[in-house]
Amino acid sequence: MNISGIPYRTIWPTAEGRVRVIDQSRLPFELSILELSSVEEAAGAIRTMAVRGAPLIGATAAYGVALAACSDASDASLDAAQRMLAATRPTAHNLAWALQRMRRALAGSAVSVRRAAAFEEAARICEEDVEHCRRIGSHGLGIIRRIAAGRPVQILTHCNAGWLACVDWGTALAPIYLAHDSGVAVHVWVDETRPRNQGALLTAYELAAHGVPHTVIADNVGGHLMQRGLVDLVLVGSDRTTAAGDVCNKIGTYLKALAAHDNGVPFYAALPASTIDWSLDDGRDIPIEERAAAELTHVTGRTAAGTLETVRVVPETSPAANYAFDVTPARLVTGLITERGVCAATRAGLAGLYPEQSATAGPA
Amino acid sequence: MNISGIPYRTIWPTAEGRVRVIDQSRLPFELSILELSSVEEAAGAIRTMAVRGAPLIGATAAYGVALAACSDASDASLDAAQRMLAATRPTAHNLAWALQRMRRALAGSAVSVRRAAAFEEAARICEEDVEHCRRIGSHGLGIIRRIAAGRPVQILTHCNAGWLACVDWGTALAPIYLAHDSGVAVHVWVDETRPRNQGALLTAYELAAHGVPHTVIADNVGGHLMQRGLVDLVLVGSDRTTAAGDVCNKIGTYLKALAAHDNGVPFYAALPASTIDWSLDDGRDIPIEERAAAELTHVTGRTAAGTLETVRVVPETSPAANYAFDVTPARLVTGLITERGVCAATRAGLAGLYPEQSATAGPA
Repeated sequence: MNISGIPYRTIWPTAEGRVRVIDQSRLPFELSILELSSVEEAAGAIRTMAVRGAPLIGATAAYGVALAACSDASDASLDAAQRMLAATRPTAHNLAWALQRMRRALAGSAVSVRRAAAFEEAARICEEDVEHCRRIGSHGLGIIRRIAAGRPVQILTHCNAGWLACVDWGTALAPIYLAHDSGVAVHVWVDETRPRNQGALLTAYELAAHGVPHTVIADNVGGHLMQRGLVDLVLVGSDRTTAAGDVCNKIGTYLKALAAHDNGVPFYAALPASTIDWSLDDGRDIPIEERAAAELTHVTGRTAAGTLETVRVVPETSPAANYAFDVTPARLVTGLITERGVCAATRAGLAGLYPEQSATAGPA
Repeated sequence: MNISGIPYRTIWPTAEGRVRVIDQSRLPFELSILELSSVEEAAGAIRTMAVRGAPLIGATAAYGVALAACSDASDASLDAAQRMLAATRPTAHNLAWALQRMRRALAGSAVSVRRAAAFEEAARICEEDVEHCRRIGSHGLGIIRRIAAGRPVQILTHCNAGWLACVDWGTALAPIYLAHDSGVAVHVWVDETRPRNQGALLTAYELAAHGVPHTVIADNVGGHLMQRGLVDLVLVGSDRTTAAGDVCNKIGTYLKALAAHDNGVPFYAALPASTIDWSLDDGRDIPIEERAAAELTHVTGRTAAGTLETVRVVPETSPAANYAFDVTPARLVTGLITERGVCAATRAGLAGLYPEQSATAGPA
């Protein structure tokens, strides 16, 4: 996608064998590019959320393995690199998926060719992600078209599942971009998404840059909007989807799904197959990341003078807790939008689209 | 309640015929007392939310009429004062209730005695509120006691329905204070309550000052906690309760009620009768206040240097909307805790506690 008219992806390799990413911890206040030159730096970028979003976490982990192979492509070195990367964040399935894919790509290859093979596989993962997101957009567009009836389709989204969460295009936002580009009027209610405000900061920034009409709201507001008939569709991403269709996504997604269900509003999650954990049926078995309380107790923004400032918004005398994800049970999910099409959030629905996966996998 | 060992109420008259309130827009960062010397200043304090919370809005409006009577106690002056006060905020029923009560108290009395009568009636409203909140606390304590089973009772609350929202004690927090004081262990999950952060700022401040164990969480978190069995009880206030038991409260309350219902967690609203709108059955008929977007787009907090600073947290290129309340349908409310006892959130339940009201009132 474009930033100020210049096409960007969220991650790309350099000719010198390094990897560059957009530092999302500084958006939208400034566009800063981070250069990663080691697996430690790649792991750090994931851990600190300079890069975030399930597909992009996977892509960054893949390049992290490639960076490890630059300095030492031995089995021991790559094993250590994969362990380090796997430990960065516990919830997004794409991380384990990408590491598994890198392991398979490099298994049995000579140490001398692993560096080149690793960069090739990481690039392939990125290209596939772009293509998968484009297809998700196309399948999701069909849903938006069916809802459209002569007035803007009102879509609520939570967190950021746009191109910044992926390599390009996005998952939940891809159908919205395609709708807008093809003349189907949409308006997006953007959940602020406390505590890290990825909605107010990243999704709003993306939509504004692309010219998509939108309004930022507090996370508390979506239920009220649905009660008043002001939401036609809820569209979110997923950090891990179980084989039975439970959707683990940014904390607060479950509350929006409950409201959608209570008000008869369709609720879809958009995700590439790399997000699907075929080894799990029950979303309650997904590890939920707890992050530093400071993400809630402190807020960074721009002062009237134009500088960035961090302020404390919870009294020093009060502890805070910061759970990063929750699980929306499949019963609340109208459907899953994948690169292969739209299916019911059920084992049968997913098996219909991915017969090769459901035949070989099952709960461990 | 005490602040640094000194007993306070949220509002009190001075010997000179003025009214003092705690300026809640500066808490917890500083304790500042605002002196109101005219009805305009009283209306301004309500409108800007220097005072907030349904019972306190009612008490402030009552004193606003008294202040108007100080300068001109004629019918025309008091009518104008009541219109000005009634227009400050649309949702809380206590505002209309208090103005109605002042009207009755002053009706037919000579202009010369109205000033004294108005101050007396406003003081009576405040005393009654204190006593009603104390009783709400006592009735709510029974609910907490029944849940307690040898481990701290986990209570989730949204917004601030503590003593700062009333004259003293609070509604939703009154049972919590009584439980804590009587040795029933409680732990409170405090919703931050975007966009004005009354939970993180006021409720956390109140609970910390009183020594009640608590943890501040993002508004997105409550559903996840309930799914994991970490909440025993949801306890909130109400800004307007219909005769059929619908509860209008701070935006986001409905989402917590949905999660409580989905997870079998009891959900209670605590409120004095002054919050009940006997003329309405359906909460959808309650006007929902929309406030300035700046309350969402800007956040005020304390910098590392100790100064207060306001920062922008939504890009300038994105519009924002700020709905202040939502309606929780009675079907999601386990019960109502009033000064007369606990009842079902139904017309019959409320009629059982307030037979004199339900006999005379009905939907307009």
